[in-house]
Amino acid sequence: MSEFLVIPRADHDSLVIAAYQSRGYSADEAAEGAKLAAEAARHGIRTHHALKALHLDHLFGSEIGGCVPGAEIEVLPSRFPASERWNANKKLGQSVAYRAIDRAIELADQYGVGQIAVDNTFHYLWGGGYVMEAAERGYYAYTNCTSTLAEVVPFGGKFPTLGTNPHSWGIPSTEANGFPIVMDWATSTVAMGRVQALKREGKQLPPGAAVDKDGQPTNDPHQVAALLPFGGHKGYGMSLLNEIFGGLIGGSLPTIRGRETTIPGEKTTTVFYFQVIHPDALSGGNFAQGRTQQGNLKAVLDDVLGHGNENAMLPGQIEAGFRKRSDEAGGILFTDAEVAEFNELAASLGLAQWDVSALKRA
Amino acid sequence: MSEFLVIPRADHDSLVIAAYQSRGYSADEAAEGAKLAAEAARHGIRTHHALKALHLDHLFGSEIGGCVPGAEIEVLPSRFPASERWNANKKLGQSVAYRAIDRAIELADQYGVGQIAVDNTFHYLWGGGYVMEAAERGYYAYTNCTSTLAEVVPFGGKFPTLGTNPHSWGIPSTEANGFPIVMDWATSTVAMGRVQALKREGKQLPPGAAVDKDGQPTNDPHQVAALLPFGGHKGYGMSLLNEIFGGLIGGSLPTIRGRETTIPGEKTTTVFYFQVIHPDALSGGNFAQGRTQQGNLKAVLDDVLGHGNENAMLPGQIEAGFRKRSDEAGGILFTDAEVAEFNELAASLGLAQWDVSALKRA
Repeated sequence: MSEFLVIPRADHDSLVIAAYQSRGYSADEAAEGAKLAAEAARHGIRTHHALKALHLDHLFGSEIGGCVPGAEIEVLPSRFPASERWNANKKLGQSVAYRAIDRAIELADQYGVGQIAVDNTFHYLWGGGYVMEAAERGYYAYTNCTSTLAEVVPFGGKFPTLGTNPHSWGIPSTEANGFPIVMDWATSTVAMGRVQALKREGKQLPPGAAVDKDGQPTNDPHQVAALLPFGGHKGYGMSLLNEIFGGLIGGSLPTIRGRETTIPGEKTTTVFYFQVIHPDALSGGNFAQGRTQQGNLKAVLDDVLGHGNENAMLPGQIEAGFRKRSDEAGGILFTDAEVAEFNELAASLGLAQWDVSALKRA
Repeated sequence: MSEFLVIPRADHDSLVIAAYQSRGYSADEAAEGAKLAAEAARHGIRTHHALKALHLDHLFGSEIGGCVPGAEIEVLPSRFPASERWNANKKLGQSVAYRAIDRAIELADQYGVGQIAVDNTFHYLWGGGYVMEAAERGYYAYTNCTSTLAEVVPFGGKFPTLGTNPHSWGIPSTEANGFPIVMDWATSTVAMGRVQALKREGKQLPPGAAVDKDGQPTNDPHQVAALLPFGGHKGYGMSLLNEIFGGLIGGSLPTIRGRETTIPGEKTTTVFYFQVIHPDALSGGNFAQGRTQQGNLKAVLDDVLGHGNENAMLPGQIEAGFRKRSDEAGGILFTDAEVAEFNELAASLGLAQWDVSALKRA
């Protein structure tokens, strides 16, 4: 029996939209939340699909005021025409991110590069989804954000004061290599979810991934008190960079972020940063052998993956492959356990459950 | 006896300027080359000071046409007001980089963000120097470039098809923490120069740094055929990113870059990318406890380095410390071996040598 059940996208979306709306989110917000969740699942990003999104919203979001259904984005005045500053007022992160990418594309069309800095935000889940959308539309896009909780120890330190702070890049490379190159990763060596999974499986962590309560490196998932940045001081710098954007935009102390605080005048929200570049603004118009810009990018990528490097992959290749598999199956692929959880969600909302025996497998 | 001799900056600069001019560089170019070399040495960057710069110019630059003294930068027409596209015509990299940072700052003043993409370039040496200058002037700055030679194996591959492709970020943080935070590193775990040094010292490489001629990981510097990216697939992606900028701007195949090629219509030059952001374009103007933007950045950084993390450092801290040491000594600090090499250079140019017995030590 194959691993996945195929859920038609419309069925997925209507359930997820109903779930968001039951929590007070507007129709627009619910649709944007469902879209990001569907795209994550379609690309095989099992850590950021609807079940995870709704769970995060439950833990940190609409139930405790971390996210405010129906909140309006305030566009603050800016004296810089290629730059916007937004106050998200804790609106659903996916709605804010999709709109920021759209607006940054408009700015890039006009100025070659556009940026949006967003204060007072709530988790946008899968940064790769937004930059991938921009890349598919033909733009270079980049985003970073501060993560909700400080779980990562700075290089040389022993106490977690940094978020797992992700970076995401999308490259307009579909014409060159068939899919948008997307790099999307946290700056910790592994996620805390991976530590839990290894604990369940009785396995060890890779070296350099975590420390125990005394700040000493450990490979034992049972001893993990905090995570380490990937790649030593370089990954530490990449994590710190998001805290720096946070500090410049309007985030406060990382160790109180996403937590309850009684300090008056304090902020515990995250921030987002978005940037989009029009590829024509980069092109020097002088490619070897008279190639086009995309033809030149293809030649460069073929050279990188040539010379015996056929086993190397481009970032985003696995996700593009899973997407193909999803699209060929005609829906979104979930495990039996995931479908059971979706059915619990449907039942809790008084909606019809999916009939597992009638679903296709892929 | 202390480790370093103190060379007055004017003496350093006049010798380095004479060396550049003897190779045909203009007065402007020679001064810009000397400035970057002096700043590198002042900050303790021993891998990119004047001796290294002149050696690189000898190997890849003015003697074989890789760099063209007196070349003029062509600013190509751009329909995007916040973006410029330059053809450097193989002008001295340091001159191009200083001018690009200056121009990107002007664009950031006007648009909040400005970018310069530069095709047909020659090695700018120390990317950290340019972004540090912008950061000291109060701006966020970023640069990447393609490295001259492909020495790095893509993650999962076995043949070197990527440059050591560095990234450099400068953060306007002097008011917050006393010096500009600067991150500046290659995307290989170690540089090829480090492999040579370990070979001389009879030491082993750290794990995950290099492969042998069969593409197998090795810790033995004598067996090293190529380098590995830092941080597994994440560092690989960061190296690939520079090749992607290269492909979009106008660089050609990484494996022929910096090498002789007889293929007609081919290009073997590197590319540069620069970006500057005005911090006011990021500020949401709503910092906790009524803090200023710099006060908020300080609070964030203090939180990161607090909680028992006093042994952690900020990127750029070591360089800021070395700069203080240089400035307090009243000059630029070189080892006896380096001064001897400068004196050989002076002799070859028919100039007076530095009198080692009369030099201060620090």
